Amino acid sequence: MLERRRARRRVTSEDVASQAGVSRSAVSRTFTPGASVSQETRDRVLRAAKELGYRRNALARSLTTNSTDLIAVVMGYLSSQYEPYFFGRLTARLQRMHKRALLVHVDDSDEVGVPLLEALSYPVEGAIVAAGSISPETAEECMRLGIPLVLSGRAIEADGVDAVCCDNFRGAQLAAEALVNAKHKRIAYIGGKATIQAEVERSAGVRDGLAAHGLSLFAEERGDFSFESGYRTALTLLRADQPPDAIFCCNDAMAMGAMDAARHTVGLAVPDDVSIIGFDDIPMAAWPGFNLTTLRNPVDEAVDNILDLLQRRIERPNLPPVIRRIRPVMVRRGSAKLAQL
Amino acid sequence: MLERRRARRRVTSEDVASQAGVSRSAVSRTFTPGASVSQETRDRVLRAAKELGYRRNALARSLTTNSTDLIAVVMGYLSSQYEPYFFGRLTARLQRMHKRALLVHVDDSDEVGVPLLEALSYPVEGAIVAAGSISPETAEECMRLGIPLVLSGRAIEADGVDAVCCDNFRGAQLAAEALVNAKHKRIAYIGGKATIQAEVERSAGVRDGLAAHGLSLFAEERGDFSFESGYRTALTLLRADQPPDAIFCCNDAMAMGAMDAARHTVGLAVPDDVSIIGFDDIPMAAWPGFNLTTLRNPVDEAVDNILDLLQRRIERPNLPPVIRRIRPVMVRRGSAKLAQL
Repeated sequence: MLERRRARRRVTSEDVASQAGVSRSAVSRTFTPGASVSQETRDRVLRAAKELGYRRNALARSLTTNSTDLIAVVMGYLSSQYEPYFFGRLTARLQRMHKRALLVHVDDSDEVGVPLLEALSYPVEGAIVAAGSISPETAEECMRLGIPLVLSGRAIEADGVDAVCCDNFRGAQLAAEALVNAKHKRIAYIGGKATIQAEVERSAGVRDGLAAHGLSLFAEERGDFSFESGYRTALTLLRADQPPDAIFCCNDAMAMGAMDAARHTVGLAVPDDVSIIGFDDIPMAAWPGFNLTTLRNPVDEAVDNILDLLQRRIERPNLPPVIRRIRPVMVRRGSAKLAQL
Repeated sequence: MLERRRARRRVTSEDVASQAGVSRSAVSRTFTPGASVSQETRDRVLRAAKELGYRRNALARSLTTNSTDLIAVVMGYLSSQYEPYFFGRLTARLQRMHKRALLVHVDDSDEVGVPLLEALSYPVEGAIVAAGSISPETAEECMRLGIPLVLSGRAIEADGVDAVCCDNFRGAQLAAEALVNAKHKRIAYIGGKATIQAEVERSAGVRDGLAAHGLSLFAEERGDFSFESGYRTALTLLRADQPPDAIFCCNDAMAMGAMDAARHTVGLAVPDDVSIIGFDDIPMAAWPGFNLTTLRNPVDEAVDNILDLLQRRIERPNLPPVIRRIRPVMVRRGSAKLAQL
């Protein structure tokens, strides 16, 4: 036990001051950018710090600067192919801004309240929620604690809560219009989990896009955003007596599952027998084996907006809430027969 | 500015004590599991804490318990398909152990020294390094600071540093043996970045496995672990006057690129014209369109061992260093013609 304690005791700035034979304030000034300290004192402090293995404590420092640079980031299992892509870029950008991500893990459909509020026992400056669902009560609690919240891919109406979302409704409308313009007659939809905002909006958008041409969905199945669920539900659609001539899927992973079901299990050609359109434009949508036509949900634009809103709200906590909608763009590859533009 | 300050000032335990009309020690006892405090005092403290929006400070608490529950996790862009899978499981497991991941981002081939040591200005209990390379000097610095280090997928010889690695050499030997036993004569290899330990070991293993049968590599290309690099290098191999009859790839993403190159660009059948084997067994290796034969690098076993070693070293920092090697298993699917077992 003694050995353990010795190995683990944290060296304090007082230890450094004592070893260097200077005041504690001199140690503090040495480690504060721009603070005044003589070269000789600085050298003595740095030498003592190195000898003792002194680590500056970012959180002790925060007591004076009022800034911890710690941002809670709520993420799920990263099991879709869109999430890791988004998350890798978000955390790289945070680090370049000299912020640190404190990770909060939630299962994809869980309410984030308990794990998020637990994480707030660390002195975070703000939180980014990119997985799970968030109740108005949890948002209100964060507001009351003075923690700015930015939601990614989900939005709620609450004071002090900003959000960045893809314009899912418009994207799904575009998919429906493109399929109708190319004379598809039997357009099916594979949706994701009903509790997820992207599903609600994409589902409404495809219906609206068809209704504008006097059409409605020919058939409909529900998956859970996974490749496997796209594969399974597409089999049901494609083995029906009257199969669809086009399938719009709520995300790319399900669209890839639908392509594999059509080509490798049912023996249909894509797009000759059935057109398939996804949503998100994950990197593997461009792989030759998929060559998937999809709606691009631009990751870098989302990350830019999230960090901009977070910074803005840290500086001015009482601004009215903002929801920024990012416009998706259709990426025409080879999985859907579409009319020439 | 006044508004901002008011919104951001952190409520302290003194504020709560004053509002509740109790001592600061009573506030502290209320929030310490198992500490003695009367029901009446506890109720007053909790009411005041709620009214004021008091957050317990996990790090202030750590000054008494000597435990911050904060673990630095070094990760890259998550751009391979193996990493997010590993990372999602690791962070979920950390959270179930009531630990928090403080994320350190590095580019995949960077030395982790600077970003890791910067992150140590937060009071982390330990660090897990699963991306980038780590120099003996960085490891030594962590040791000197009393920060236990566990490396994942990479190992160095240094006091106080444990590692969990796949037995890459053995896995690649298995791939070579299986291809030789199935009478492949022209076995090529697509390697990853030369600086990465998995590449060094897998490359040595496939050579050793062939040498045991008096063979050597028929051809060799180098990618960077991405799908695109597997696609590009496989095109070079397959368009040569004398193409290989089998390609072993250093990871699954490159093997999938090689499959797409063979089937969609060169017009070869897999496995009839060319057998392809990957490494890792990422979830999409099982997708029908790939149905990839590969070596499974077991994620849950790796995560279990990492957390076990970390816990062990936090408790007993002076134990000798350990490298645990996880045995990969061949998963036989449809992308390689192999002899019956």
